[in-house]
Parts: sequence; C-alpha cells; structure tokens
Amino acid sequence: MNNHPPPLQREVILTGDRATGPLHLGHYVGSLQQRVSLQAQHDQTILVADMQGLTDNAHNPAKVSSNILNVVADYLAVGIDPSQTIICLQSQLPALAELTMFYSNLVSIARLERNPTVKNEIQSKGFERSIPAGFLTYPISQAADITAFNATLVPVGDDQLPMLEQTNEIVRKINNLADEPIINECRPLLSDAPRLPSTDGKSKMSKSLGNAINLGANEKEIRAAVKSMFTDPNHLRVEDPGQVEGNIVFTYLDAFHTDKDYVEQLKAHYQRGGLGDGTTKKILEECLQEMLRPIREKRADYLADKAQLIEVLKQGSIRSHQTTQLMLNKVKEVFGLNLF
Amino acid sequence: MNNHPPPLQREVILTGDRATGPLHLGHYVGSLQQRVSLQAQHDQTILVADMQGLTDNAHNPAKVSSNILNVVADYLAVGIDPSQTIICLQSQLPALAELTMFYSNLVSIARLERNPTVKNEIQSKGFERSIPAGFLTYPISQAADITAFNATLVPVGDDQLPMLEQTNEIVRKINNLADEPIINECRPLLSDAPRLPSTDGKSKMSKSLGNAINLGANEKEIRAAVKSMFTDPNHLRVEDPGQVEGNIVFTYLDAFHTDKDYVEQLKAHYQRGGLGDGTTKKILEECLQEMLRPIREKRADYLADKAQLIEVLKQGSIRSHQTTQLMLNKVKEVFGLNLF
Repeated sequence: MNNHPPPLQREVILTGDRATGPLHLGHYVGSLQQRVSLQAQHDQTILVADMQGLTDNAHNPAKVSSNILNVVADYLAVGIDPSQTIICLQSQLPALAELTMFYSNLVSIARLERNPTVKNEIQSKGFERSIPAGFLTYPISQAADITAFNATLVPVGDDQLPMLEQTNEIVRKINNLADEPIINECRPLLSDAPRLPSTDGKSKMSKSLGNAINLGANEKEIRAAVKSMFTDPNHLRVEDPGQVEGNIVFTYLDAFHTDKDYVEQLKAHYQRGGLGDGTTKKILEECLQEMLRPIREKRADYLADKAQLIEVLKQGSIRSHQTTQLMLNKVKEVFGLNLF
Repeated sequence: MNNHPPPLQREVILTGDRATGPLHLGHYVGSLQQRVSLQAQHDQTILVADMQGLTDNAHNPAKVSSNILNVVADYLAVGIDPSQTIICLQSQLPALAELTMFYSNLVSIARLERNPTVKNEIQSKGFERSIPAGFLTYPISQAADITAFNATLVPVGDDQLPMLEQTNEIVRKINNLADEPIINECRPLLSDAPRLPSTDGKSKMSKSLGNAINLGANEKEIRAAVKSMFTDPNHLRVEDPGQVEGNIVFTYLDAFHTDKDYVEQLKAHYQRGGLGDGTTKKILEECLQEMLRPIREKRADYLADKAQLIEVLKQGSIRSHQTTQLMLNKVKEVFGLNLF
C-alpha cells in the first residue's frame, strides 16, 4: 500500500475512467486508492467517460454502455463516497461538448498529430489514417473536461503529461482572448505507486487478454490468475536460487501485502533458494482473496440495486451540470456569444 | 428574378449562413429569395452559424459576434418571416455540439481530408497543416446541424454537394447502428440562379475586398460600386461595339432588372455600338437603388431595435432546442447512453 500525502491547499481535482470495462487491480493501485485518500480534503469529481470510450468503440457501443454502472459500482465498492466525491456521466454534460467545439478552433491538426500520447495510441491501435476524427481530437475533449470543472489538479500517469500540456495551452489561449485569467491552469498529480504489471508480465493489463484481475473477480478467477502468474522462468527446482526482479508474484506482494517485513523475508528466502513458486503464489492468493472479498461483495450489492447506482450518477451529473455551465458561459462571453 | 417552383411535398428545410459579415447581393440572388419563396409551403429553419463562423475566426471572434444581429436584420429586411421560418442561433443549441461529438467517432481524418470542398477551402485560406481541428471537422458539425433538424432538403451551391454526401454517410452509419431508419437522408436543393459575380469580376465577393454590394449599402456606396464595375475593357469609345459576356453590368441587369425585354434591347444596342458604359451603369444604378432602398430602410429599422432581433433569435432557438434535443435523444439511445 502506498500513501498519498494530500497537497496542503484545497484543490479542485478532476479524474475519471473510460467506461470500456470493469476496473481491475491496476486501477486500484494506480488511481482508486489515491482518490479515496484525496476525497475528504479536496473537491474531487470523477467523470465516467462514456463519450471518450466511444472514440474507438463507436461501432460497438455496448462495450461502453454496458460498463457504465460496473465502473460506478467499482468506485463505491473501494470506498469512493458520493457525499465527498462527485461522480458524473460525461454524456450528461452538454457543456463538455460545447467547450470542445470552441477549443477545436484553437488547436491545429498538426499539433494534435504531434501529441506523443495520441501518437502511441494511434500506433498501438493500428489506426493510421483511418483514425476516427473523435479519436485524434480527444485531447481537446479532455481539455474541455478539465477546464469545465476549472480543475487545478489532475491525477495522471506520466504518459498522460502531454495531455495536460495541451490543456494548459488551450487555457492560455482562452485567457489571452479574455484578457484576464478566467480558467486555471492545471497541475499533474503523479501517483507514487509504480504501474502494476499484467499477470503475464508482458503486455498492458486488459480484460480481453485475460491478464488482469478485476475488482469483481471471484475466488476461482483470483486463484487461476495467480496460478498463471509469470515468475522466474529459470527457477526450475525449489532448492535453486530464484529471481525477484520481474517476478510478478513479488511485484504483487509488494503492492498488496500489508506486512512489508514479511515480504522482504520471503524475497530473501526466494533469492537464496528453498522457496517454491507454489508457496509464494499461495501467500499472494490468500492476500488477494482477503483484500478483494469485501470489495467483490460490496460491488455485487451495489450492482443488485441499479436504480441506486443510476441515482448516484444522476445526482452527480446534476451538480456537475451547474458547474460546467458556469464555465461554458464564461467561455461564451470570451467569444462574444452571450446574446441571451 | 428567378422563380423556384416549390417541391410538391412539405419538406423540412435547413439552411443558414456563417455570421461573419452582413449579407450582400450574392446572398440575395443565391439563397435569400429562394428562402422567401419556400417559407410558406415548407418547414424551414435558418441557422445563424456563429460556431461555424469561429472555425476560422477564433482569434478574432468579434468578426462573428458583431455580425449576428446584422444577419438577422438582413433576413427580416428581405422578407423572411419569423412566423413562417424559424431563425435560430447555432451556439444556443447544445445538441448540435453533442451530435458532432458522436458523429466524430464515425468519420476518419482521411475521409475529411478527401472532402473536395474542405480541400479547396484549406488551400484558399493557406491553412495547410496549421488548419484548426474545428475547421477540418466542420463537415461533421454540418452533418450534426442537418440531422438535428431531420432535414430532408438542404439548399446548397453545387460546390457544397460533397458536404451532403458526408452527411448522408453519417446518416447511414447511425441508421445501421440503430437497425432502423431514425434519421432521414437529405437531398440538395440546387438554386437555378447562376452565381452572382463580384463587382470587379475577378474574385469571390467579400466585404474586405470591397467588391460586394451589401443589402444595407447606402446610396453613395451603391453608386460607387456600380461606377467601379468591370465592363468590357476593349470598349473604349461609345460608338464601338461592346461585349456583353463577362460584362458585370449586364450580369447584374440580368439578375436584378425586372424588365427582361428592355435588358435584351440594351444588350443588342451595346453589341452593335453606340451605347456607353456610363449609360448602362446609370440604368443599373437606378435599378439597384430602387430595389435596395426599402431593404436598407427596413434593415435600419430592425437594427434600431436590437431587443426585438434578439427576441426573434431567442424564440427560434427555444423551438429549435426542442427539435434538436429530440434527435439527440434518439442518437443517444443508439449508443445506449439513455440511462436517465
């Protein structure tokens, strides 16, 4: 477990997830724990990004629509509290689309194509020139999301820093046009947790590759996932010394086991020989089973009452609608379009 | 004057203008007369396209904002009747931005770059790769405009036909996703009026080039514009035969003089020699002064009561908001995003 000492002043935090699948342990380590620890001291909003989820799933929209409530259930199950954190749905906030339209006129196609994050994603998705317009332009839409809430702090991975640069470029252009600072520039909040690797140690965690452990995974799925975990391929006999670096079982023990001293003892034992993968996996499995059981149970309870989940999203979206319309009106004024 | 026999069935017509300058005689001949003749028999909406005006004027937004009411005054002055034609403001209709976001995921960047209309405009504006994202993607925004009203008929110049093709491609994709036709494909209504040339006969009419006669032009401006008109550069002496083709004075007489026989007699006289440019210009000037005087006076009256113009736009926008939200809700349903 890692601690995220909250910044001293009260910040406006915008964060969110594409609603394209249930959340997994990678989200838990990378963002969910941080959100839980930030929510009491800050004005935190989580945007369930259904519109952004469609940018590369428009021909299979069920992948997005069927996951919206899963994601909300994941949030509540890990302890995100809707009385402290506003949870809202992107498609319910027209100001986000309208701000995107305004900002689109301030960003060139060349600038979008230079964005390293988008470049990588285009390559990894094999889009090339068939890239949907909505996908190339999604940094503009993200800038709309962040600025609509006038966020000062945006939790991101370091691969997402170019997105915040793009956002702040737009902020400066709007403030220049306005001749006064009407939108805050935002700062990144980098997680101090290292990125959790997939269970196969090879690729990015993804449900379709079966190398992620979802927060809603049942006992059998957890057991199977740990059993299949990549360890040290040269550690053939229990009595041989084994390698800890790159051994996913130890990476997960570092991330999730609460007794750090015990994990260090295990590592030392493994390195000098005499500790088998079966044993380390058993220890990790117990740890994960214990940690995920209450999350899974709460998640199932929430999903059994969909009306309540919808109500959480609805109330959060109503509050966010007011916030985002305020910023839209300011930007409209910058462009002189506040006739009535 | 040309007649536009109205199509037989009642059509839903969407048309509009970028609010980047007051309207001129080119608009009068190319679209305004047609709108007046269509408004009684059809459900016609005119969109004052302020958002589209910003796609290439974001750094000079006053060019758009200062012209919105000018354009509405132009409409009313030529006889567009808000009790028959809905006049609305693009930036007041969030559904247009939201539909644009949905459609952006269905159109590739390559497809946009192939659009001949956009290609020409990129070239003529010298954009190249510095083209704003909002400019490259404006055919998607136009598709949103047209489909939001479920328009069946869209008056366009033939240079705009690729825009309607793009719109109908999107319509077919949405209808495929919906598994039923929820949006109508639209048909172009091509004007039978030839494009009116600029007074210098060289370039596209534009206020900045000073080669257009605005509907609000005063007597002096009309006189000066006609005086400077391009005629036959080889027609040096009154007694010489002159050329009618390419002679802008005759083009305008064809377009605006109500006595067609008289214009034919003038042409014959000019061609055999003995009719000077001073005389033909005098005749044209009288014709234009007579035609534009009542339009200019009405226009000034409307502009003297800005609150009334704003009210026209506001009422039209409220009605259009209802219409466009209906279509947005249908499209949201297609994408499964109608949770609440």
